Amino acid sequence: MNLYDALENIRALDYKAMKEASELHAKFVKPAGSLGELENIAIKLSGITGQVKNLISHKAIYLFGADNGIYNEGVCSSPQEFTRKLMQVYAINQNGAINILARQAGAELKLYDLGVKDLGECENICTHKFMKDGTENFLHERAMTQDTAKKVIEFGINLVKEGKSEGIQLIGTGEVGMSNTTSAAACIMAALNSRDINLIGRGAGLNDEQFSRKKNVILESLKFHEKNFIDPVNILSCVGGLDIAAITGLFIGGALYRVPVIIDGVISIAGAVLACKLNNLCRDFMFASHESLEPAYIHAAKFLNLNPPLKLSMRLGEGTGCAVFMQIISDSLAIINQMGMFQEIL
Amino acid sequence: MNLYDALENIRALDYKAMKEASELHAKFVKPAGSLGELENIAIKLSGITGQVKNLISHKAIYLFGADNGIYNEGVCSSPQEFTRKLMQVYAINQNGAINILARQAGAELKLYDLGVKDLGECENICTHKFMKDGTENFLHERAMTQDTAKKVIEFGINLVKEGKSEGIQLIGTGEVGMSNTTSAAACIMAALNSRDINLIGRGAGLNDEQFSRKKNVILESLKFHEKNFIDPVNILSCVGGLDIAAITGLFIGGALYRVPVIIDGVISIAGAVLACKLNNLCRDFMFASHESLEPAYIHAAKFLNLNPPLKLSMRLGEGTGCAVFMQIISDSLAIINQMGMFQEIL
Repeated sequence: MNLYDALENIRALDYKAMKEASELHAKFVKPAGSLGELENIAIKLSGITGQVKNLISHKAIYLFGADNGIYNEGVCSSPQEFTRKLMQVYAINQNGAINILARQAGAELKLYDLGVKDLGECENICTHKFMKDGTENFLHERAMTQDTAKKVIEFGINLVKEGKSEGIQLIGTGEVGMSNTTSAAACIMAALNSRDINLIGRGAGLNDEQFSRKKNVILESLKFHEKNFIDPVNILSCVGGLDIAAITGLFIGGALYRVPVIIDGVISIAGAVLACKLNNLCRDFMFASHESLEPAYIHAAKFLNLNPPLKLSMRLGEGTGCAVFMQIISDSLAIINQMGMFQEIL
Repeated sequence: MNLYDALENIRALDYKAMKEASELHAKFVKPAGSLGELENIAIKLSGITGQVKNLISHKAIYLFGADNGIYNEGVCSSPQEFTRKLMQVYAINQNGAINILARQAGAELKLYDLGVKDLGECENICTHKFMKDGTENFLHERAMTQDTAKKVIEFGINLVKEGKSEGIQLIGTGEVGMSNTTSAAACIMAALNSRDINLIGRGAGLNDEQFSRKKNVILESLKFHEKNFIDPVNILSCVGGLDIAAITGLFIGGALYRVPVIIDGVISIAGAVLACKLNNLCRDFMFASHESLEPAYIHAAKFLNLNPPLKLSMRLGEGTGCAVFMQIISDSLAIINQMGMFQEIL
């Protein structure tokens, strides 16, 4: 699917189905609106699928591993090889946080290597290296070519198409890649035209010196590339990551193929912002899950006008917030599918 | 168990088990602290049970039905018989919100009639009427005698003892009773010595006239009784409800028998506040679940220094927030029980 064809073919939510879902909720044995977001989530799902009642049995979390050239500027507190090692934990040991939380949610975990340094073929990982060792160092050059950015987005869109044909009805967005909070903050600041240094956070745990360096690197990079921030594809090409580009594609694919896609933390929401900048209808097909501690997340969520219902002070990524939120979606659907009516008791 | 014996026998959290749980978390394959509340919940559970790792298989939601004499002042938007009818929905139809969400959480639902008007013996409901038609109208007299207040608290404490002997490891607090947000706001304002009218909310959905009446009724009642607000038992006796008294007992019992108890909405948190006023150690054995829209809830949560992680704009009661939160507890325990260590990959 070509990116621009995809963007042209996104259609609005089904407001008739949403109205019917709202009317159904008004008949249930509870004060109107008293289940709050548990009602709203089910109503939005009705709009996405066109069905008033939905059952979601097949869920998946797509986790993209990718390294980042900006790592070389000393903006990360962990060894770069942790990208590879964590991918191996998810694939082989299967006892990373996302493995556990995906199992808890009854979700399949799908792992993709888009450009993890020194990671060869590995069981349970789909290898699709768009750049062998990850992106270039965007302090000095584009992170990836425009062509690569577009191709990775299209890869993400196609994953939703394939997933839907496999029966996947709900998608979570995950990632791993040292320094990817640096790319994510840069993408959000570029897309939302902000140079506010307070949007930059400490990621996995930078000390003061590293944190100061991260802020300088982002501001300098934005200055270096800003004449090229003409559209989201260019923003990804200049300061993005392969993971963010693929996640952007998932959000576009979700809107095109009408599969709900869940935002995780700051890296994931960078993709959500870029997808909405390409076609604002995308926001109707996404759900915010948890409020990340990274300040760029909060700024992006305001732009998207989405309120994440989980305040768990999480900042791990991997798609962990999506997995926790999947159980809230499940609760929301159980209510609309099973609840009794006032008329039965009056 | 006598109330005062119970209060004297509450012991502090097991800090050794909590320290071990913290140290374990520091070894997992993730940045330190990056799972936020999912870590803190498991650590607090270690302190409650004294075991570093916990498995919770038997959960229950205790739902107390009780009518309130203050209903007669026109402070409620629903017919009073809804207390009875909703209890019958939970017991017979089993398709109320709490039935569905308890099933989703894998929790048993235990129903108690503490004083529901016109409700006789009913399948699946334990009948323990402390006052046949519910409390008296506290605008003009004590809602219940001091002796009744103490007995209902002790009933709640004993439920935890019995529950623990049945294997129950986690308790949610639920209630139903027309006008019980009026009693709850009055209890919280009495216990925290506030007369701030902004703490009073619209409950299930009052119109402006009813809402204005509710505020006046609460302020007048507080004025009428305030010389008697000498301890939490007296506060319950003056302006409480049978449901709030039993929930107060659950929180005390949770602390005494070291079983975690979850706060639901404004009625439940009124019980939590009163329990903490009786023995402040109780707060270490309770978890906040969702942030209710009722303003007295927010005030009480600040007093308890607890941050509810779910912001779902729910205001239904019944224990619904507890049921949703039980899945977060389950996630939290899955992490501490299953997660891989850094040493395995280095």
